[in-house]
Amino acid sequence: MALADILAERPARREGIAGAVAVLKQRFGERLVTGEDVRRAHAHSTTYIPNQMPDAVAFAESEEEVQEIVRICAEYRTPIVAFGTGSSLEGHVNAPQGGISLDLSRMDQVLAVHPEDLDCVVQPGVTREALNAHLRDTGLFFPIDPGANASLGGMAATRASGTNAVRYGTMRDNVIGLTAVMADGSLIRTARRARKTSAGYDLTRLLVGSEGTLGIITQLNLKLYGIPETILSGVCPFPDVRSACDAVIQTIQIGIPVARIELLDAQSMQAAIAYSQLDLQPQPSLFVEFHGSQGSVAEQAEMFEAIAGEHGGGPLKSAARTEDRAQLWKARHQFYWAALALRPGAKGIATDVCVPVSRLADCIAETQADIDAAGLVAPIVGHVGDGNFHVTLLLDMESQAEIDAAEAFMARLAERAVAMDGTCTGEHGIGQGKRSYLRKELGGAVDVMKTIKSALDPLDILNPGKILP
Amino acid sequence: MALADILAERPARREGIAGAVAVLKQRFGERLVTGEDVRRAHAHSTTYIPNQMPDAVAFAESEEEVQEIVRICAEYRTPIVAFGTGSSLEGHVNAPQGGISLDLSRMDQVLAVHPEDLDCVVQPGVTREALNAHLRDTGLFFPIDPGANASLGGMAATRASGTNAVRYGTMRDNVIGLTAVMADGSLIRTARRARKTSAGYDLTRLLVGSEGTLGIITQLNLKLYGIPETILSGVCPFPDVRSACDAVIQTIQIGIPVARIELLDAQSMQAAIAYSQLDLQPQPSLFVEFHGSQGSVAEQAEMFEAIAGEHGGGPLKSAARTEDRAQLWKARHQFYWAALALRPGAKGIATDVCVPVSRLADCIAETQADIDAAGLVAPIVGHVGDGNFHVTLLLDMESQAEIDAAEAFMARLAERAVAMDGTCTGEHGIGQGKRSYLRKELGGAVDVMKTIKSALDPLDILNPGKILP
Repeated sequence: MALADILAERPARREGIAGAVAVLKQRFGERLVTGEDVRRAHAHSTTYIPNQMPDAVAFAESEEEVQEIVRICAEYRTPIVAFGTGSSLEGHVNAPQGGISLDLSRMDQVLAVHPEDLDCVVQPGVTREALNAHLRDTGLFFPIDPGANASLGGMAATRASGTNAVRYGTMRDNVIGLTAVMADGSLIRTARRARKTSAGYDLTRLLVGSEGTLGIITQLNLKLYGIPETILSGVCPFPDVRSACDAVIQTIQIGIPVARIELLDAQSMQAAIAYSQLDLQPQPSLFVEFHGSQGSVAEQAEMFEAIAGEHGGGPLKSAARTEDRAQLWKARHQFYWAALALRPGAKGIATDVCVPVSRLADCIAETQADIDAAGLVAPIVGHVGDGNFHVTLLLDMESQAEIDAAEAFMARLAERAVAMDGTCTGEHGIGQGKRSYLRKELGGAVDVMKTIKSALDPLDILNPGKILP
Repeated sequence: MALADILAERPARREGIAGAVAVLKQRFGERLVTGEDVRRAHAHSTTYIPNQMPDAVAFAESEEEVQEIVRICAEYRTPIVAFGTGSSLEGHVNAPQGGISLDLSRMDQVLAVHPEDLDCVVQPGVTREALNAHLRDTGLFFPIDPGANASLGGMAATRASGTNAVRYGTMRDNVIGLTAVMADGSLIRTARRARKTSAGYDLTRLLVGSEGTLGIITQLNLKLYGIPETILSGVCPFPDVRSACDAVIQTIQIGIPVARIELLDAQSMQAAIAYSQLDLQPQPSLFVEFHGSQGSVAEQAEMFEAIAGEHGGGPLKSAARTEDRAQLWKARHQFYWAALALRPGAKGIATDVCVPVSRLADCIAETQADIDAAGLVAPIVGHVGDGNFHVTLLLDMESQAEIDAAEAFMARLAERAVAMDGTCTGEHGIGQGKRSYLRKELGGAVDVMKTIKSALDPLDILNPGKILP
């Protein structure tokens, strides 16, 4: 979506908002903050869209308070932008029409762990790291890992995934049920705790990925998994990106239940080696991880190495010790910062296309050629087992020409992915930045989404200006 | 829902319906059938709800024809009931308000198989057996197996699952995207072919399980899986149902990736042994299946047998040969007929609760006591790895007292499951039969469902009288 269009969206809600802020101030006192620093921190965006601050930030501490805040905002036609940790990537927490940022980070309790059912119940402000710390003595873990220490409410709202999705699925697959406050202030629970159900419409999946535009998630029932008996990670170099992709395709096709399979292109490897001091070569590489019994993990690794060898890759440099594995994945997770170090002063903007895995090599090759032709600096990493990859554009935000070139590149990338029967966003969501691509990808389905949005939020107070074009 | 309420739902749509039938007859000629036999066959119900015939049956052969039929029905405010093979279990294909049964069985083409992406594209009338026959030479299969040779469109519409769900998930997890004709006749595609996406609302999951009340599914993009290198099935007897359940709980908790784990109580075993001539004892038993490499399958079976032994079960009588496995699962799938043979002349009505697996033993034990106290004949089988089990009530439909007792029993069973944080339906759907339980299970979420239904089908023409109370 062109920047001018986004900035133009600020209808005359001002009077209502002032009323809502006054009432909320009276009710919540110091938990309703209007200071600029706090407002700014609740609206940052990692896109090229500037920070669009809310008028105030409300810190909720219970479901009842969320209901109260939503009811007040409904009365005053005031936008509400749910906020977890602010690690979203498409301007989800920006407030283009002003209003209230509803900070859920204080709702950070793990309410129940049911080890016998492999599930737990958490408040939305619990982060994934906090949950896994809480689970430490149970032998269980929550696998979804988008890199950032995001809140679980935010991860559900954006349908996040990350490195483990190839084996464990995304937030779509790992939320059993949730509670949410709807636009009229009512609190609903979408499902009970059974592992499967055919009882009515799947409101769980409707709210997962709705980016705070249909309801505010206030509780989540999540699947948990036993920590595997054996975990083996490793790095496998390849002569070029295409051969690495071909190895990925074959790995998936043959059914190796790989837990992680991440691509770093040569430039990304160079950045990661420098930033995280890895003893590796700057060749296109796959970071892999296998979970299972000792025998199964050994078998998986052996099969993978054989496939890699067929494509000119290898050897697999494995990291079986916990600290070596941790170093490896820390390097992968720090990639954003490593990339920034490639071009000091630049801003990093992540794209997020995802294509059928058979088209992955083509899509990456065409994209690399496009990056070169456009004269951009843009290393590529990806959750390639899912067909999902990120081009991290390193941009000089002072240069309008560069921003224009990046915008044009991103549009071409989205179109390329859609032409290959893929999506403009595998895991980051639409937010503000990708709204203009949605109709190209899904056509008339967007009108169905709009009908649902109008029916469930007729005043358009829940995160307005997001997802729908 | 009480029978009287269901039968009372027939508003004055008669004139419109007559108009729609006349227009459709003109347009579709012999593919618009009004003969009673065909109408009756398109409305049978395996509940105690009587057959409620549509006014006509339209046989569609393309998406465009589905659009045309829906537009004509919209013009004449005429109900449309989508029909696949008619194997649904809760009166989904009954036409309580009359109207058109839209038979999709002639849309039976496998449109594409993408072995490299492990997916396929099918029309809704393809049955699961037809798809697997089509896939025979590819080394791939579609795992969801509800027993009946249902159409894939119908399976998606009811969010079906079956014996393999514990390993491969349900239709919810295995539909990548779909196309559907909405109530206004528009055709939408909910997702492209990428394995994951965060692009907007999850309309795929909204339509899966919507039982034809939000749209008519006209195409499905489904996940496929490699046929496992090794498959091992077996039967393991237990001294009682509780010890079998406890073994299931431990098997799931420890993370054995069992592909199937089915419980048959003593009465069910007796029925299956007699009907399918099995060389087994009439003890409560688990039918299990393991998928994987040779080493992994042996390991899984060994671990399972050890767990069974701890609970007094075993030995595992295994069936590694294809024909032995086929006989075993055929016996499981023929269970409904086997159960009927326990009480000749009776009608079999299947219940479908699903609870967190930790509550499974309690739920089954309380239910067996309830069956005994109510004086009903009702063997129990279940997809116990998911916490899902079916009580098959064998009823003399001539006895109103028995029907009343069954209705009261079913209501208690649904309440028991909900009280244990479970659902009244794990896989059959709500249809007509379970509408009265939905609000008890999901409270105000039902109002959100109604809002969505009203927004997407304002004339209430898509399968009216189903799901929503």
